Amino acid sequence: MFYVIGLGLGDAKDITVKGLEIIKKCDRVYLESYTSILTVQQEALEEFYGRSLITADRELVESGADEILPRNEDEDVAFLVVGDPFGATTHTDLILRAKERNIKVKVIHNSSILTAVGCCGLQLYSYGETISIPYWTYTWQPDSFYEKIASNRQRGLHTLCLLDIKIKEPTLESILKKKKEYMPSRFMSVNEAANQLIAILDNKIQDGHKDLAFTHQSLTVGLARVGCEDQHIVACSLQDMTHVDLGPPLHCLIIPAEKLHPLEIEFLTQYTLDKSQFKEMTQ
Amino acid sequence: MFYVIGLGLGDAKDITVKGLEIIKKCDRVYLESYTSILTVQQEALEEFYGRSLITADRELVESGADEILPRNEDEDVAFLVVGDPFGATTHTDLILRAKERNIKVKVIHNSSILTAVGCCGLQLYSYGETISIPYWTYTWQPDSFYEKIASNRQRGLHTLCLLDIKIKEPTLESILKKKKEYMPSRFMSVNEAANQLIAILDNKIQDGHKDLAFTHQSLTVGLARVGCEDQHIVACSLQDMTHVDLGPPLHCLIIPAEKLHPLEIEFLTQYTLDKSQFKEMTQ
Repeated sequence: MFYVIGLGLGDAKDITVKGLEIIKKCDRVYLESYTSILTVQQEALEEFYGRSLITADRELVESGADEILPRNEDEDVAFLVVGDPFGATTHTDLILRAKERNIKVKVIHNSSILTAVGCCGLQLYSYGETISIPYWTYTWQPDSFYEKIASNRQRGLHTLCLLDIKIKEPTLESILKKKKEYMPSRFMSVNEAANQLIAILDNKIQDGHKDLAFTHQSLTVGLARVGCEDQHIVACSLQDMTHVDLGPPLHCLIIPAEKLHPLEIEFLTQYTLDKSQFKEMTQ
Repeated sequence: MFYVIGLGLGDAKDITVKGLEIIKKCDRVYLESYTSILTVQQEALEEFYGRSLITADRELVESGADEILPRNEDEDVAFLVVGDPFGATTHTDLILRAKERNIKVKVIHNSSILTAVGCCGLQLYSYGETISIPYWTYTWQPDSFYEKIASNRQRGLHTLCLLDIKIKEPTLESILKKKKEYMPSRFMSVNEAANQLIAILDNKIQDGHKDLAFTHQSLTVGLARVGCEDQHIVACSLQDMTHVDLGPPLHCLIIPAEKLHPLEIEFLTQYTLDKSQFKEMTQ
């Protein structure tokens, strides 16, 4: 059997009882290590599970299905994923490869940032399409996600912005030399995301666009380490979000709908930096 | 401390290790019993947790915050919710009432149907606004959710349809008599949902509408008991969805985007009833 097990968002104890039981009995256990992170390291997980884990980086997962998947009917293999197993396309692909080989697959679900963001009080049923904000480079500065935020706002919906993560990305040099060297890991902060959104706004203003989907003064909600002991949430203007300190990763950002439900406003109030400014933004 | 703990979607062992530890040490533990259900009964949970649970029906949750919330700083109370704690507005309200009383609140997240639907292979990032399909009565047959499906389809997005649940709803007679009598529980099946969607389509056709958002032959995906041992998924036309047998509740229904990603098509193929019809629908 091939088990794909969600680990949730926080630490070792966020696994489900069912998931933990399976890990303990499997022949091999892989830890997917490149699409997200927990607040604890692999060693802490190994100690809690009472067994060693095999690190599964992008190279292994995308090309090593044969190595990962059970080799026969009697072998049980677990593949551990931060959040819920269906968050990333590569895991879906691995499940398909298993089914091609007639290997039985079982998925153990867990919490995902896509629903855990409910903790800021914005109703989960009022979200539109989720977007991803990638790190810009000098030559690649995509802004197509702006249109998705605009489209959500037009329909009175919130937008969850997932922020870029770079784990074990090869350096340009190492690609050219065909020698493996990796860049240090990077996790986009809400400050960086807010700065990119403001740059997009400024470009649109410079190009003479009117009726912008949001402004420097629009309400945003920044969330850090959702589901962890030191979870931190701040509701403030996009402008102020460029210099709020939410601490270590992972961060995500929400651009709420223009009009909020009274209960949403009441709930968000506890996370505001400036109550009078918040009142203006939500009137 | 007031703990709000998600139970996930399946049985007793879908709780997280962290959640279980908290339940064991709390002074009182409530089980919210009216917005969703697990595949096991309260007795099975009590046996697994090794303690008794207090049933929290709608009346208690919506008017009994004083009764539920901790009475002093030393008291620990847990409130258990199927899925993730932020799925329903009433739980958000309970958290606000706790904060008003300066009671500390801690949330233990878990999987939610909103992300667990990823198991059918449709990418979670390609969903638009989630809709709820309510039971129609002779005098109340709302169809406003049709416009939301249409809007999602226009933008190339999937629509998750959550289906109505009626648990412990007072009978009309009992409201008039002021004597408490409840209707039997009802859980909308994908068949009932598909029939209502077809009725809406037929009304639109009769009213001369063109460019309908979907047709009787559009692809739909029905899911039953997601995350459970006997989970069942079927991909077929809306017309066929009216008579597919997915077994016991809970069901939900997806109206996919018109154009699917090749990986989505490959994944969905395993759930089709008629491969050649499926090929036509996804061309």
